[in-house]
Amino acid sequence: MKQITGITKQESFRLSRMTDRTEEGAFVRAEGAVHRVRNLGEVVFVVLRQRDGLIQTVFDRKRFEESGEIREGGALRTEGRIRREGRAPGGAEIIVEKAQVLSVPAASLPLPVDRNIRTASLEARLDHRAISLRNMKERAVFRIQEGLVRGFRDYLYGQGFTEIHTPKLGAKGAEGGANIFKLSYFHKPAVLAQSPQFYKQMLVGVFDRVFETGPVFRAEKHNTRRHLNEYTSLDLEMGYIDSMEEIMETETEYLRYAMALLNREYERELKLLNCELPRIASIPALRFDEAKKLVAELYGRPARAPYDLEPEEEELIGRYGREHLNSDFVFITHYPSKKRPFYAMDDPEDSRFTLSFDLLCRGVEVTTGGQRIHDYGMLRKKMEARGMSEEGMEGYLEAFRCGMPPHGGLGIGLERLTVQLLGEDNVREGSLFPRDMGRLTP
Amino acid sequence: MKQITGITKQESFRLSRMTDRTEEGAFVRAEGAVHRVRNLGEVVFVVLRQRDGLIQTVFDRKRFEESGEIREGGALRTEGRIRREGRAPGGAEIIVEKAQVLSVPAASLPLPVDRNIRTASLEARLDHRAISLRNMKERAVFRIQEGLVRGFRDYLYGQGFTEIHTPKLGAKGAEGGANIFKLSYFHKPAVLAQSPQFYKQMLVGVFDRVFETGPVFRAEKHNTRRHLNEYTSLDLEMGYIDSMEEIMETETEYLRYAMALLNREYERELKLLNCELPRIASIPALRFDEAKKLVAELYGRPARAPYDLEPEEEELIGRYGREHLNSDFVFITHYPSKKRPFYAMDDPEDSRFTLSFDLLCRGVEVTTGGQRIHDYGMLRKKMEARGMSEEGMEGYLEAFRCGMPPHGGLGIGLERLTVQLLGEDNVREGSLFPRDMGRLTP
Repeated sequence: MKQITGITKQESFRLSRMTDRTEEGAFVRAEGAVHRVRNLGEVVFVVLRQRDGLIQTVFDRKRFEESGEIREGGALRTEGRIRREGRAPGGAEIIVEKAQVLSVPAASLPLPVDRNIRTASLEARLDHRAISLRNMKERAVFRIQEGLVRGFRDYLYGQGFTEIHTPKLGAKGAEGGANIFKLSYFHKPAVLAQSPQFYKQMLVGVFDRVFETGPVFRAEKHNTRRHLNEYTSLDLEMGYIDSMEEIMETETEYLRYAMALLNREYERELKLLNCELPRIASIPALRFDEAKKLVAELYGRPARAPYDLEPEEEELIGRYGREHLNSDFVFITHYPSKKRPFYAMDDPEDSRFTLSFDLLCRGVEVTTGGQRIHDYGMLRKKMEARGMSEEGMEGYLEAFRCGMPPHGGLGIGLERLTVQLLGEDNVREGSLFPRDMGRLTP
Repeated sequence: MKQITGITKQESFRLSRMTDRTEEGAFVRAEGAVHRVRNLGEVVFVVLRQRDGLIQTVFDRKRFEESGEIREGGALRTEGRIRREGRAPGGAEIIVEKAQVLSVPAASLPLPVDRNIRTASLEARLDHRAISLRNMKERAVFRIQEGLVRGFRDYLYGQGFTEIHTPKLGAKGAEGGANIFKLSYFHKPAVLAQSPQFYKQMLVGVFDRVFETGPVFRAEKHNTRRHLNEYTSLDLEMGYIDSMEEIMETETEYLRYAMALLNREYERELKLLNCELPRIASIPALRFDEAKKLVAELYGRPARAPYDLEPEEEELIGRYGREHLNSDFVFITHYPSKKRPFYAMDDPEDSRFTLSFDLLCRGVEVTTGGQRIHDYGMLRKKMEARGMSEEGMEGYLEAFRCGMPPHGGLGIGLERLTVQLLGEDNVREGSLFPRDMGRLTP
């Protein structure tokens, strides 16, 4: 019988751990994927890709030949001494004294991982996703994404929110409409969750404040650069609010928190991507009708859809934010009731509008939120007015029948937020393995 | 136009924020759900449920009558002065000077939320889940669960793991077998992910170390106290390992980290649930065949299934761990190849067994993990030997063809770990809204 006590092996050396000159000459072990091999005859440079950067190892000809098959894509363990070298990535290299091939690839890479991979089309990069992500810049996108979701949770833990895990399989979709995936669940009809909306509301009655970070599913029949059929939603819902502005305030503080976290702990990746994050002192909020009128007048684009913002209008609002409000973010509030789900709270001052909002980031919607109806009678009345059936919603309605505090919340599309911050032009760039109408693999 | 700058409203007073006597007599605003009303005639005690505990408010008869409908399940805002009172929950109460009813329930609660709710059956509690969770102990279970998943992420961030979000919709299941949910994806056959296995392995080639916390789907036709058809899986996968023990070491340290986090930040809930967490100095590891023989001999239970552990055997191993090894956790290693998926690495010393393990917590499996095959040729050979088709797996196989480091990982069932630590006897107690063969709502 063995006893497992904890981690005993020393970690692989990485350049990010080298803080000063004192480590020059130190004997270290470094592992990594073979990112690039440059064979100059008498000397061979093998650049290893590690999780936080590249490290150059230097072989003499004899050791390289004796070490076995060292090829791009393989995995290698080296031991040797550190030498300062200004031309090496990170300013140092390892003079190899011993090497062990950990893995040999069976084929060469279908894409140029160590060069500008964007010369390959998006389709090609997605077709070979496990390979294209080995490019330093491509993978950095998802380190930034990690910071965004990590910041969301950390900020909310600190604000007394409880993290929840709600089912993705259910009897009824929360958002209505046709964009819903259906399946058979032990011979019963079931759907995939379009959002955790019902559950997070029910749980406000339990924990007062809740959040979830998880997948949602939308069978949208749109194949645009803004749509995914499965995406990661950052959802929160909070009770005891007096207005929807409190939700917007919470989002503003989250964004500020996340930008600070990224600048602090993801500096390397931001630099690699040449990305400067927005500074958020405050976020301007325009009313829906006001914003619509404003861009129509200012940019000469007549409004066509009266109840919603078209993508081009959102873009123009983004331009307005940049040019006139000095802000990458703009809240749009008071969306028409017609285009919002039944659970949205109507504005008591004008019931054609709702106490709801979107947040645009550089002209693209990244968040939808608002205050919800908490009164049971009001909720049923609105469902009735819309001709909705209560079937499959008994548990949701029971929470309201037994009393719910005033509340509201929001959902942020993680992939959209990622690409908007990084200046990517297609939401697929922000998904490790995107799902769209034409893509179910890899 | 408004400017949203951040949170401006002062938070509701909560007893957990009261640190010393100096706050006696302070004028505060406290909100909460009406948890209990005790009307003594001249004086009425209204206990409010807040996210971190109960707080007693005291009304005189007149103010109570003038305040509107204050009923269990409703939501209330009070203002008043703090008074020390040993008999009140938390040792203090608020003498109400002003009250505002925020919400009035339309019906009384179907379950006794403020008393021992376990007098109601599990079925009844699950049928009315949004209500039964309002019970203080029921909801505390999910605060503990939060600590477990939060600890998982925090520990792994610190170890250089990258968080990933992988698709739940795909063309092929990772674990094989019949327990797979199928659906139509824009007229193409699709499945729900049984695990993020393929994706986390592919991404080890990108980030070296990855983890994911998300839902997985198993169409198991078992309606037992151990099975859920949708559960939350804590997955990690790490490269550059020399043995499966490194995975087990990482899990051991995670568990220690999580126990410390829970003891530090979830003390209130642990106390409420009367739960003492295991102390983990080390975790004993037994070989599969050794463990099987041992419980057969020690407890007189002849082994029947030669290639797997039956639930009763796991229970007996748990008993052995408690009685002889002084441990709530036991690793079982070297499972037979026949019962492990194709991607498991066979033991080079005896290929009938694999370099894989389970972790049992108090006699129930909570983790499956192990070293994986990283060599392309070996992987294809094993797939061929099992008669597997490569269809739908092209992207997975390409990662190996282009080179993968030695690696391994594990998946922890969050709900199982939660209930095993808390001594619950049914995994459904650890799921907010469980999904089983008979339950798709609420």
